Amino acid sequence: MKLLDISWPISAAITSYKDRYIVKIEPLKEFEKDGVRESMIELTSHTGTHVDAPAHFLRDGKTIDHVELERFAGSCVVLDLMDVTDAITDERLEEHDGEIADEDIVLFKTTNSLIAATDPFNPHFVYLHESGARYLVEKGVKAVGIDYLGIERGDPSHATHTILLEAGIAIIEGLRLAHVEPGEYPFMCLPLNVIGADAAPARAVLLIE
Amino acid sequence: MKLLDISWPISAAITSYKDRYIVKIEPLKEFEKDGVRESMIELTSHTGTHVDAPAHFLRDGKTIDHVELERFAGSCVVLDLMDVTDAITDERLEEHDGEIADEDIVLFKTTNSLIAATDPFNPHFVYLHESGARYLVEKGVKAVGIDYLGIERGDPSHATHTILLEAGIAIIEGLRLAHVEPGEYPFMCLPLNVIGADAAPARAVLLIE
Repeated sequence: MKLLDISWPISAAITSYKDRYIVKIEPLKEFEKDGVRESMIELTSHTGTHVDAPAHFLRDGKTIDHVELERFAGSCVVLDLMDVTDAITDERLEEHDGEIADEDIVLFKTTNSLIAATDPFNPHFVYLHESGARYLVEKGVKAVGIDYLGIERGDPSHATHTILLEAGIAIIEGLRLAHVEPGEYPFMCLPLNVIGADAAPARAVLLIE
Repeated sequence: MKLLDISWPISAAITSYKDRYIVKIEPLKEFEKDGVRESMIELTSHTGTHVDAPAHFLRDGKTIDHVELERFAGSCVVLDLMDVTDAITDERLEEHDGEIADEDIVLFKTTNSLIAATDPFNPHFVYLHESGARYLVEKGVKAVGIDYLGIERGDPSHATHTILLEAGIAIIEGLRLAHVEPGEYPFMCLPLNVIGADAAPARAVLLIE
């Protein structure tokens, strides 16, 4: 079994959502001086590849430590959406209807994956339209993943997030899929178990033979 | 498929090695004020469940982003070492010789798992003696995991770490195994992909039917 990493590399140069926060990675102990290396890492719950918990946008939503890990593990389909230039709508998803099974984890491979992981934040990223979110709720998927640091764009009502989270669909943001062939894979994404947090940084992989 | 979480919960109250560092988790955005929740997380590369990279103790050792993820995924055996009161020596491991297969990931279930995850650091934790480390190198295991925040104790030469890391054996520290029956399981541990880091926080699970 091989693991294909689809996670966003974490560094002090990492892109952050709307360029709001800076990740700090600093040595606490250095080999030359201390004979050992240790580091301090300061990041946000939404840095790089991460899982949003319902508490991110819902008043009484579960925090990440209460979301079942099985939500982020199992059969997944990577959809080829490289031809979408703006929003992933219900119509665009209907073109892939036959590829999406009940209880699937659906990952969107878009041109977002061509943006370098340390580029300034790109406000024109491809996002999931609320009609697409409703479509996925009806399909009964268990999680949705996108290859940028957000899944919706400039919607003050946060409809896409709210529709998915209220339906108990997990949201995985910050994937990297440029090197991945669209298709079906076993998938696993493990977020850090941060008690009471609205989200947590995670590592995500596809399992290949 | 069910996932059995064996990770150390991360909170501001988490035990840290020798009580040296404090984890900070603070709100960046709050629901009542901002309509959304986001958090800042400050921790070290060795907080809670984490994977040591060779760069932790070896001058030219690989950093965590260069360690193959397959090292932390695959067949594992949880050894019942609840009767060990001090060091896990080669002699203690020989008692379990028939349970350890080539290329196994070996996890030690010890009385460390009975120490609460937020207790002050316990300097008397059960650890892997360098003779035990040599034994595991000879057995050809691919990773070793222990249920406390360190795998060796008060050895200024860091022999246990050095023996394992030089042999390319991954070290997973900070597991929680009180709720786990000893035996064989498929295992997966995914550390954050922190570029250039000596270690990284991780989530670890056992797969059960």
